[in-house]
Amino acid sequence: MIIANTIAEVKEHVRVWKKEGKSIGLVPTMGYLHEGHASLMECARKENDIVIVSDFVNPIQFGPKEDLATYPRDFDADCKLCEGIGVDLIFHPEPSEMYAPDFHSYVGVDTLSEGLCGKSRPIHFNGVCTVVSKLFHIAEADRAYFGQKDAQQLAIVRRMVRDLNFNIEIIGCPIIREADGLAKSSRNTYLSPDERAKAVVLNRALTKGREMVLAGEKDAAKVVKTVRDMIEAEPLARIDYVEIVDWNELQPVETIDGPILMAVAVFIGNVRLIDNFIVE
Amino acid sequence: MIIANTIAEVKEHVRVWKKEGKSIGLVPTMGYLHEGHASLMECARKENDIVIVSDFVNPIQFGPKEDLATYPRDFDADCKLCEGIGVDLIFHPEPSEMYAPDFHSYVGVDTLSEGLCGKSRPIHFNGVCTVVSKLFHIAEADRAYFGQKDAQQLAIVRRMVRDLNFNIEIIGCPIIREADGLAKSSRNTYLSPDERAKAVVLNRALTKGREMVLAGEKDAAKVVKTVRDMIEAEPLARIDYVEIVDWNELQPVETIDGPILMAVAVFIGNVRLIDNFIVE
Repeated sequence: MIIANTIAEVKEHVRVWKKEGKSIGLVPTMGYLHEGHASLMECARKENDIVIVSDFVNPIQFGPKEDLATYPRDFDADCKLCEGIGVDLIFHPEPSEMYAPDFHSYVGVDTLSEGLCGKSRPIHFNGVCTVVSKLFHIAEADRAYFGQKDAQQLAIVRRMVRDLNFNIEIIGCPIIREADGLAKSSRNTYLSPDERAKAVVLNRALTKGREMVLAGEKDAAKVVKTVRDMIEAEPLARIDYVEIVDWNELQPVETIDGPILMAVAVFIGNVRLIDNFIVE
Repeated sequence: MIIANTIAEVKEHVRVWKKEGKSIGLVPTMGYLHEGHASLMECARKENDIVIVSDFVNPIQFGPKEDLATYPRDFDADCKLCEGIGVDLIFHPEPSEMYAPDFHSYVGVDTLSEGLCGKSRPIHFNGVCTVVSKLFHIAEADRAYFGQKDAQQLAIVRRMVRDLNFNIEIIGCPIIREADGLAKSSRNTYLSPDERAKAVVLNRALTKGREMVLAGEKDAAKVVKTVRDMIEAEPLARIDYVEIVDWNELQPVETIDGPILMAVAVFIGNVRLIDNFIVE
């Protein structure tokens, strides 16, 4: 497995692979890889000749009061996991390699970025779109793999690719969960044992909401209230948002009569967790 | 010469050309082609196996009070010119082909977009970066050609390409002028015969400014004042801006001690014209 720290190195390898007619799958990550990332990598491994994983904690998608400095990192463990899955190249740049001092460019998607996580994280999706655009150009991938856990991110990246005519296919992969249902996340490591136990409330509440929708409930407010009530019953939980939006423009819906995303962001103690389900 | 109206058509041809290992040069234009565009196309013709010209009046780079509706168009004449130069493909989409009703993405470059034309045209360069990003992805060009007449645009597109790691080389080409020195522009066609005669003041004033800089004048304010005074002496002229900025970040300079851009935007009657020189 190649470990590349510079953009030039990656581009050099990519040039050779493209010349050989090889297909390339990209898995963009912020490292501290878990089974969720592994599932993306395995999917990429099946569908492409070459698999590139980027392992980069992207500073420009963190707000000033967010957890950039403390975001968990373990590059050695990441390398082992990637090697085990048969990744061809892991790209692990320094922030200065990605962002020159006179870096001034940005990419974004309006409307879809404004609600849900965008409300409390106003610069987040601009940072995501910008770094993802860079990675798409660097890796010249045929396919890129994103987890549905970040459903808003997945919708935004898909729209960006469609709108800007990127030559890449975006593959969304299902949420991977712990045995008790908690969605896998690098941030789960922040949770104390007690918080970890209580964090399962997100999935429990969403499962109830999903059942209501699948049973034919059309009133979004009713579903939202049931999910909110279940989460609020947990004293360690503080809701950032609980919302049902249409699974295209990500705008709040009153009546459920098309594909929807139900998404929640909840602080368990000081740790902000997200989870969701989609009904197509 | 292939005339393509859809993105899919262009991508289909590009796929074949890429497979054959051919190099592609792109000349993005808004049509109503003149000798300035022709010089870009000829340069592209020399340096690439395939030349693609896009001919598209990009609505999102025009402000609400600007000349989108009246911008001159003559696609038949454009085709003749392109054919004569040996262009392989001319891409002439409808706005709806480029911008779906739920188009929400944008690309931009801050700092460089804020001064000069950006002051009076706040959305202009976002519109340029967005359409150019699309065209770069559609044409998968190895090189793209831009005229130095739009010096700020050239600097912004170059920065965008560097920052976002586009796999394309940006080639800047010199300003092409009428016999009397007026920079060629599709908008010159708006000028009445009297205005046309007076419009030469831009080049005359800039030539004087350039002489001062080349003679060693370091005081930017002095050069700006000389150029302003010459333009203001023409009753038909109304200055939008006259500025000297550094030819990297496009920020105003007091002392000329590195590469600079001197740029002007001047209304002659109701027609806004731009011109500039660079001293590297």
